[in-house]
Amino acid sequence: MLNPATPAFLDTLRAHLPAATFREAGPEHLQEPRGRYTGQGLLLAPNSTEEVATILRACHAARVGVVPHGGGTGLVGGQVMQDGAAPVILSLARMDAIRAVHPSENVIVAEAGAILAEVQAAARDAGRMFPLSLASEGSARIGGLLSTNAGGLNVLRYGNARAQCLGLEVVTAQGEIWHGLTRLYKDNTGYGLRDLMIGAEGTLGVITAAALKLAPVPAASGTALLQVASPRAALDLLALARDRVGDNVTAFELMHRQGPEFLIEAGLDARVPLDPLPEWMVLIELGLPEGLRPEDSLAAIFEAALEKGLSEDGVIASSEAQAQALWAVRETIPEANRRIGSISSHDISVPLSSVPDFIAQGGSALQEVGEVRINCFGHLGDGNLHYNVFPPKGRDRREFDDIRPRVKEIVHDLAHGFGGSVSAEHGIGRLKVGDLERYGDPVKLSMMRAIKSALDPNGILNPGAVLRG
Amino acid sequence: MLNPATPAFLDTLRAHLPAATFREAGPEHLQEPRGRYTGQGLLLAPNSTEEVATILRACHAARVGVVPHGGGTGLVGGQVMQDGAAPVILSLARMDAIRAVHPSENVIVAEAGAILAEVQAAARDAGRMFPLSLASEGSARIGGLLSTNAGGLNVLRYGNARAQCLGLEVVTAQGEIWHGLTRLYKDNTGYGLRDLMIGAEGTLGVITAAALKLAPVPAASGTALLQVASPRAALDLLALARDRVGDNVTAFELMHRQGPEFLIEAGLDARVPLDPLPEWMVLIELGLPEGLRPEDSLAAIFEAALEKGLSEDGVIASSEAQAQALWAVRETIPEANRRIGSISSHDISVPLSSVPDFIAQGGSALQEVGEVRINCFGHLGDGNLHYNVFPPKGRDRREFDDIRPRVKEIVHDLAHGFGGSVSAEHGIGRLKVGDLERYGDPVKLSMMRAIKSALDPNGILNPGAVLRG
Repeated sequence: MLNPATPAFLDTLRAHLPAATFREAGPEHLQEPRGRYTGQGLLLAPNSTEEVATILRACHAARVGVVPHGGGTGLVGGQVMQDGAAPVILSLARMDAIRAVHPSENVIVAEAGAILAEVQAAARDAGRMFPLSLASEGSARIGGLLSTNAGGLNVLRYGNARAQCLGLEVVTAQGEIWHGLTRLYKDNTGYGLRDLMIGAEGTLGVITAAALKLAPVPAASGTALLQVASPRAALDLLALARDRVGDNVTAFELMHRQGPEFLIEAGLDARVPLDPLPEWMVLIELGLPEGLRPEDSLAAIFEAALEKGLSEDGVIASSEAQAQALWAVRETIPEANRRIGSISSHDISVPLSSVPDFIAQGGSALQEVGEVRINCFGHLGDGNLHYNVFPPKGRDRREFDDIRPRVKEIVHDLAHGFGGSVSAEHGIGRLKVGDLERYGDPVKLSMMRAIKSALDPNGILNPGAVLRG
Repeated sequence: MLNPATPAFLDTLRAHLPAATFREAGPEHLQEPRGRYTGQGLLLAPNSTEEVATILRACHAARVGVVPHGGGTGLVGGQVMQDGAAPVILSLARMDAIRAVHPSENVIVAEAGAILAEVQAAARDAGRMFPLSLASEGSARIGGLLSTNAGGLNVLRYGNARAQCLGLEVVTAQGEIWHGLTRLYKDNTGYGLRDLMIGAEGTLGVITAAALKLAPVPAASGTALLQVASPRAALDLLALARDRVGDNVTAFELMHRQGPEFLIEAGLDARVPLDPLPEWMVLIELGLPEGLRPEDSLAAIFEAALEKGLSEDGVIASSEAQAQALWAVRETIPEANRRIGSISSHDISVPLSSVPDFIAQGGSALQEVGEVRINCFGHLGDGNLHYNVFPPKGRDRREFDDIRPRVKEIVHDLAHGFGGSVSAEHGIGRLKVGDLERYGDPVKLSMMRAIKSALDPNGILNPGAVLRG
């Protein structure tokens, strides 16, 4: 059993930590983007790895829970603890330094509190790119992005957050510091603890800094928005594009017409420049080596797709501004979704070849719950769909609270039935603990519990996230 | 304490396993490529995951050690147990099926005993490639390659073995089966157990099958061998190449003149087609999208390098046969090394920008031990050098047995001093257990021990490998 973090407990730390560590928790520490949870706890905002270690040593000894907090943008409640003994909310926001950039090594070293957009900018300033890219990049922080193994738009080519990381500095549950901040591209000395800490959502250790991989900037990039005859045609188009340009396909995003229609309904500006609005479309980005014009490569892909009956219409951006306008459609859909208000949102993945069947069967299965609208879009190249279910036009999501559990069950059962995942990129947090228990392999769960007990025997790290406390 | 595997113990298994499981251990199970260790134990060769589970349940209950055995090509003695209570040698060689190929998903599912070259061939037959490539690919097996997180020639672009894997089937120390054989590109449901099992060298579980990523075949590939002025010039050339073609650089291998000289000395055929033989040279391979001729891209890179004084001579392959002849130089060097016989071989990595200083300081530091020859070559793009130390011409390695520990210490201390690794791609096995204790972060080691105890409380899995028993 854990003890609550009390003012008296914090007072025992005042002799060991600067006064600036002790702050009032604000709404940004207690709320999360979807408004499903309200957190509790007392805030500590350390400014160094040693200070994090001091806090964890005290919490370990006193059996006080610790909820690590980055940018607070997580969508599954991993950053807010609603129930149980009040925890220390451990904000990493003050540890936001970019410690070093090594352009000749393609490495950047950033602290956990560094904001993703600032890491991207530092990479750009060094003539490199940091490929991780997602909607919340203006406020999401590196520690949280790694702890949740964030995905986003460029996973197809560059992998998820785990694939971007070379080394970690981590404070353990006992308050010891693992100095694993290596800049090595290859190191086979012992267990893959880096990749275990990444994606553990702060339940096995607190990430305080990371050495991250940078990528060379492609010599030229190009973007196209192509109508496709069906989700199956979209998959065939992806295969066709990869036959031609290999893994130089940087992004391959599927959108159903519902997304652009929601943009209009929500009063947002972004528009699809195709008339009529297709039922299905894909946004393709290529990043190419020197000597190729992306417009030419995209035109060749479109012509081949036309010939095969995969696509009949499309637009290839001829300027950076046009490319940004096409991307704006995709990137504004989450805001449109937020304004319209979903009954239930899902972040599922299935094996790539099952995507069309999943989409077809999802629509049929949901007829059981009555009239709803489905906005299905996402990272097709990764088999990852954001499959979100909305009320009919003019109705409010709150009228549908009673069907939410059934909607979620239908969608998750279907994804699981295809060998899929009920959390492709958002993680488990607190929202999906039951889903993990329902769908997770029991042997995997028992190994997870054994590792949790081994590394955090008092169970202080992010209690109730990922695994039930 | 473990109990020995005795004929009587095996007899208790005969009722539960087919007769074909029980075989005589041969030299291939008891010896390893460098002849440093001779194994012991009784062989079991199961033919299914269930049979592996049956064996592990019995070994767990009887506290009998299990040494998993794949192709037996490991270079650090992870596959042979010389001392202690005789273990069961668990050969996965009979489980060599390719269970499925999914070209439209870029996925192949192979059992642990499948030989790498056969997985490569199955991918090729499906119009795809499996990028993992290394000298022992004709005999190394998938289970061992994953357990050791093997590296090889294409890590620069495609990553090491861990980066090639989507899902695993694993039998735990207790003989339970984790059905984690997912074909998903994204799945954030719980801890990264896949990446923990990969690289654990059979000490945390026995990998029985894997779902592996395939890559699109580049539309065109090209190879060049370029003289470079120095290791620093080689790094600058890599940066120049990546500025032009991004991550379409598939391989970037550094070779010192000693390697090609060893080819002659050892009576091997491969030859460098440059006269005079350069002191330093790099082998570059590009894999390019449609619309580019690799010879043109390589010529442009060479001209830019010439202009910057990085390179003065080189050859660009104009046919597949020429490309293979260039690759033969690089790939035959390990055989030349074997014939000449090293005093000590090292598989180190350092941060990329430290490679030139490591090479310069290594040569100076080794003067302490008297006259030796250094064959330094390897995966420069990964910061990974095979830095091997040989006797002067005409002398035998056995005369130098007494200096081997000091040579190793000099090289490893130097790599460690640069923030490097003493095992970049070969793993720890039994050879480098002491190195891990000497150079490894103590907090990392204590987390590793905690995880080992949690997942294998009786310590039966590959006893004495990675961690001291």
